[in-house]
Amino acid sequence: MSPHPDYGVTPLEGLPSRVTICEVGPRDGLQNESAVLPVEVKAEFVERLVDAGHTVVETTSFVHPKWVPQLADAAQLLERLATVDGVRYPVLVPNERGLDRALALGVRDIAIFGSATESFARRNLNRTVDESLEMFAPVVDRARGAGLGVRGYLSMAFGDPWEREVPLARVVDVADRLMALGLTELSLGDTIGVATPGRVVALLDALVDRGIPINRIAVHFHDTYGQALANTLAALRRGVTTVDASAGGLGGCPYAESATGNLATEDLLWQLHGLGIDTGVDLGKLVETSVWMAQQLGRPSPSRTVTALTPGASA
Amino acid sequence: MSPHPDYGVTPLEGLPSRVTICEVGPRDGLQNESAVLPVEVKAEFVERLVDAGHTVVETTSFVHPKWVPQLADAAQLLERLATVDGVRYPVLVPNERGLDRALALGVRDIAIFGSATESFARRNLNRTVDESLEMFAPVVDRARGAGLGVRGYLSMAFGDPWEREVPLARVVDVADRLMALGLTELSLGDTIGVATPGRVVALLDALVDRGIPINRIAVHFHDTYGQALANTLAALRRGVTTVDASAGGLGGCPYAESATGNLATEDLLWQLHGLGIDTGVDLGKLVETSVWMAQQLGRPSPSRTVTALTPGASA
Repeated sequence: MSPHPDYGVTPLEGLPSRVTICEVGPRDGLQNESAVLPVEVKAEFVERLVDAGHTVVETTSFVHPKWVPQLADAAQLLERLATVDGVRYPVLVPNERGLDRALALGVRDIAIFGSATESFARRNLNRTVDESLEMFAPVVDRARGAGLGVRGYLSMAFGDPWEREVPLARVVDVADRLMALGLTELSLGDTIGVATPGRVVALLDALVDRGIPINRIAVHFHDTYGQALANTLAALRRGVTTVDASAGGLGGCPYAESATGNLATEDLLWQLHGLGIDTGVDLGKLVETSVWMAQQLGRPSPSRTVTALTPGASA
Repeated sequence: MSPHPDYGVTPLEGLPSRVTICEVGPRDGLQNESAVLPVEVKAEFVERLVDAGHTVVETTSFVHPKWVPQLADAAQLLERLATVDGVRYPVLVPNERGLDRALALGVRDIAIFGSATESFARRNLNRTVDESLEMFAPVVDRARGAGLGVRGYLSMAFGDPWEREVPLARVVDVADRLMALGLTELSLGDTIGVATPGRVVALLDALVDRGIPINRIAVHFHDTYGQALANTLAALRRGVTTVDASAGGLGGCPYAESATGNLATEDLLWQLHGLGIDTGVDLGKLVETSVWMAQQLGRPSPSRTVTALTPGASA
């Protein structure tokens, strides 16, 4: 069944038949929202996302609450969460101490957050890129040893607000070193949303040339300049089958001083389902969830699709 | 010179080196804005768009003012406009009476507005599709005889709010009959923004199979569901080189009850320039113009790129 059968489904050659969405709303989305939500609202959010059909939901972060006050309740959230078999709930873990906490709570998937540029590594991790890789090495090693999945984000892979253009060779080099730590998946982050499709294809080709399998690569686009879905289409044509998105477009982009950050999952679903690509996610349920979350946050969803489908609720 | 050299330019194979933008802000954009603007503001708008580098600017419409009060000043606008050599200023003309007025004012390019569906033809033109084609026939014939360029819009080419999915064969049939009237260009309108890239490619292929040259086909996407740029990318890959867009994303979509209608020219420029595709349009000047127009209208631009580049002005 198509989630928007009203307007038909037309496949396009060269695209995958199924895409896995990594839903990052509860972590990457909420951490950029200034209104701090109660833990029970966050738990309901995750549970609604899973009920809508998501199989990968990034739930929270063990980054120090000083940096991300919104996620200070990470342990309480995980303890309260009714989890579902077959669903992965990755948790961001910055260092070994974070890993210890995650392991103690029974977490089965973690994520680490690397940077392609020195500027962002310094600002976000208070380390050089080399130092951050040294910090991650024992985290990934121990996590993999314990049988966990480890996703690695590579931020500023398409441009950086301080360094501007980021050389492709630089991105490939850091990606390669991250993968060598033992990642199960690498997510390429267009943290400030400046990428266009040529750059996406060039980076994917360069990573594959370096020996990183395309099925280990996810894309994480921001819609700051409206480019996220065109970039997604270009990535799918190159064989990518995992796409990060945030329900309702939650999470602005603090570095571009814009309200528009993460690609909205609903906008992604509209594209994928119109192309006949299976995601397992119910668009209607997701829109309902995003409208509910917008009410919790007291601001409308920036998602085009949410706005179009619920003109009253989002106006 | 790239308009955003800061983040580099990466071409993508299979795309054209140059794209002509048909800027529809003054007509298609403003006609959906409820705040009626003074004629001098409209003239300045058109002149600023041309100063930014646009070579095709749809300026106004001779539709009866009862239907489009915003454009009741069409004649005054055209009389006041300082035109520039090498720039086309198409004017929407619904019937022979409108053509007479346009010719008397020295208009050199007109546009007609057809529908792929009976529902929209009835609501928008108060005619059947057959009757509308009969109405257009003498308009196109006389205009071409007088040496004018004639652009024909085909609305609801990808979906219709009343009929929902519109059969491809139906769209091809009406397109063929429109072209047979003698159009110099056919613009395929996704009036409610529901299209996805597979449908775009399928329609283009079907039109080319029917014998319509791809260089006569323009695309007119709406961003109601966030799909416009991905659809544009798919169309460019199929050889389309003329893309309609509206400065600042002006013009909501009344049929989808959404604030988001036309693809914003700035979002399009970000994509094209990032791909190394020449448009001749200066992004910075266009953003300034859209911020100025947003002030005239008293509401922020819905363009992602305008918002990202002017966080203070659009907040």
